[in-house]
Amino acid sequence: MNNFEFFNPVKIVFGKGEIAKLTNLVPKGAKVMMTYGGGSIKKNGIYDQVKTALTGFDVTEFSGIEANPHYETLMKAVQIVKANKIDFLLAVGGGSVLDGTKFIAAATLWEGSDPWDILTRRNEINVEAALPIGTVLTLPATGSEMNGNSVVTRWETKEKLAFGSDFVLPKFSILDPLVVFSLPEKQVANGIVDAFVHVMEQYLTYPVNSPIQDRFAESILTTLIEEGPKVLANRTDYESAANFMWAATMALNGLIGVGVPQDWATHTIGHELTAFHGIDHGRTLCIILPGIMNLKREDKKAKILQYGERVWKITEGSDDERIDATIEKTVSFFESVGVKTKLADYGVGSDIIPKIVERFEARGIKSIGERGIISIADVAKILELRLK
Amino acid sequence: MNNFEFFNPVKIVFGKGEIAKLTNLVPKGAKVMMTYGGGSIKKNGIYDQVKTALTGFDVTEFSGIEANPHYETLMKAVQIVKANKIDFLLAVGGGSVLDGTKFIAAATLWEGSDPWDILTRRNEINVEAALPIGTVLTLPATGSEMNGNSVVTRWETKEKLAFGSDFVLPKFSILDPLVVFSLPEKQVANGIVDAFVHVMEQYLTYPVNSPIQDRFAESILTTLIEEGPKVLANRTDYESAANFMWAATMALNGLIGVGVPQDWATHTIGHELTAFHGIDHGRTLCIILPGIMNLKREDKKAKILQYGERVWKITEGSDDERIDATIEKTVSFFESVGVKTKLADYGVGSDIIPKIVERFEARGIKSIGERGIISIADVAKILELRLK
Repeated sequence: MNNFEFFNPVKIVFGKGEIAKLTNLVPKGAKVMMTYGGGSIKKNGIYDQVKTALTGFDVTEFSGIEANPHYETLMKAVQIVKANKIDFLLAVGGGSVLDGTKFIAAATLWEGSDPWDILTRRNEINVEAALPIGTVLTLPATGSEMNGNSVVTRWETKEKLAFGSDFVLPKFSILDPLVVFSLPEKQVANGIVDAFVHVMEQYLTYPVNSPIQDRFAESILTTLIEEGPKVLANRTDYESAANFMWAATMALNGLIGVGVPQDWATHTIGHELTAFHGIDHGRTLCIILPGIMNLKREDKKAKILQYGERVWKITEGSDDERIDATIEKTVSFFESVGVKTKLADYGVGSDIIPKIVERFEARGIKSIGERGIISIADVAKILELRLK
Repeated sequence: MNNFEFFNPVKIVFGKGEIAKLTNLVPKGAKVMMTYGGGSIKKNGIYDQVKTALTGFDVTEFSGIEANPHYETLMKAVQIVKANKIDFLLAVGGGSVLDGTKFIAAATLWEGSDPWDILTRRNEINVEAALPIGTVLTLPATGSEMNGNSVVTRWETKEKLAFGSDFVLPKFSILDPLVVFSLPEKQVANGIVDAFVHVMEQYLTYPVNSPIQDRFAESILTTLIEEGPKVLANRTDYESAANFMWAATMALNGLIGVGVPQDWATHTIGHELTAFHGIDHGRTLCIILPGIMNLKREDKKAKILQYGERVWKITEGSDDERIDATIEKTVSFFESVGVKTKLADYGVGSDIIPKIVERFEARGIKSIGERGIISIADVAKILELRLK
């Protein structure tokens, strides 16, 4: 295993009815901005629970944070935060609201000339301050509730970019599995596959003798495979909702990624499908991952075989047969929860390939994936494999 | 799964050579007390590494913290801390040094009349302040490097008592697996079984539908079973040392215990064997655990069968046969790393039974274990089962 640092001070408050604890989790006397999305929390009762728990607090609301939160929207929130001297941000929503709120927190205290630099110059400039954040998670998927990562989209230029900082780690996150009951089926499915691929990005690389990290990753994958379909089949199954929710958080809180190589090429390519065609984030991952597994079967052989054996019980056949069977099982799982895995399923044709290649070239990207095994030419091949 | 809160802000700095990072981890300008044990760190080079990294800091040394750290010793340190206006404690050692330092940190800022109350009145009074602590771990075993627990022994009265507080969570812990190379074999063995039983105490109860926690627990157990013997067989195998070290930390940092029932009866009884007979902590656990598994095989049936199947691949026979085989495998594992599992192996006879029973009765303890399934009469039976 490689040397590593691990630091995750997010306080998790997990379980049914726990939203009421907000009263004691938000700092006394805080001037709060409550951020949320399109208003579904007003229909499912979460808005009311939050507002009741915040009785007595000075709360400004900022709604309308969209899926793949827009830089333009978030900068409007920054203006309001500054004008109202807000000192605590409470994000009530899924990954988009949480990611957007992290950006608001960082941009508010950003001392550079242009907050856009937080996203475009992330390799040169660090976020060194941010307003404190708390979250009430309404959609298990991204793990944003227990990490310091954020992905923001500039609508104007269709760019989807990420940043990360310990300063935007939430002070607390409330995870009440009851929120899963009222989610649209499509969002549950997106959450299941999103969490699944988060694990894969940290796991499906090459062996570095890391049995704890490997087995924890396999534990989360197996749990998503078992519990995900139960959540979809019985929308009021609390236990399955709870297990799905905890699995999604553990999938991307940093723990399974310590001391091991990571990939993230599926995300890098997938983000472009969202940026160009608005395909849901989780779905883009299910399109791309099988292509990477197929094309990079030699580089990833040891881990694909281990994953196939331990997660899918595939032990028969030649290495290539086992790899094919493992990819097939992975694709079938995605499809079984209702997520299509080919570009054609989303009405996207081969014209996407040069567009993505061109964009990567314009950004000066030479290769992606662990050890840079995926060249720009490979990106084109991977997309080719996933056309139809 | 049950509702839970999880909060673990300890920064882990893991890997070979990482002790040098102390220079930047200890707060600038801190007045440091460096605590350690009997001086083995002077022989294995860790002392020199720490001192080099602390060049320029104001460092007071406090050595001589013994195994099962003594209240009497720790209170001497508290006096020195106060007299010298120490504001940061750096514990360099194993679980005893770390636990002892946590007590020093809490006792220094204790506002009650008697710091002994921290241990005896833990159910009534909380620790609400403590000096900040950093640690350099020299012995993987107790998990103290990533939790807020501490066990202290009052030598005068042979009482071994525990307390826990978020305030004594280390600010950082440096885990350099190279420290394992110079450990006496006996200490490595103790560490392996200690970590193993920590997992069992959080796992071997009754099912509450917690697949992530269960599989993580099984992951750690399996890793200890695989890596422990490798560490003992090749004392300079870095990879195995690293995996053992990370497994021991994950065994008791709170993660596998969230939302599930916990037992801890093995520890409660084991502590008395240490208090009365000075048997190494890890060894006491290996004596007691098989007795509890045997006597409470009905209450714990579902989890014993799951543990036997997933960890030891025991799938044949009646439930009782599988349970017997599972206990046998567990005992064999302990013995295989050189840890004896019967009281007679340590020269302890049946006269210990009334002594422990009497002490529990004097403390007003009616029952222990999850759901209070172990009565005081059961404690006697468990000890009886483990005589020889």
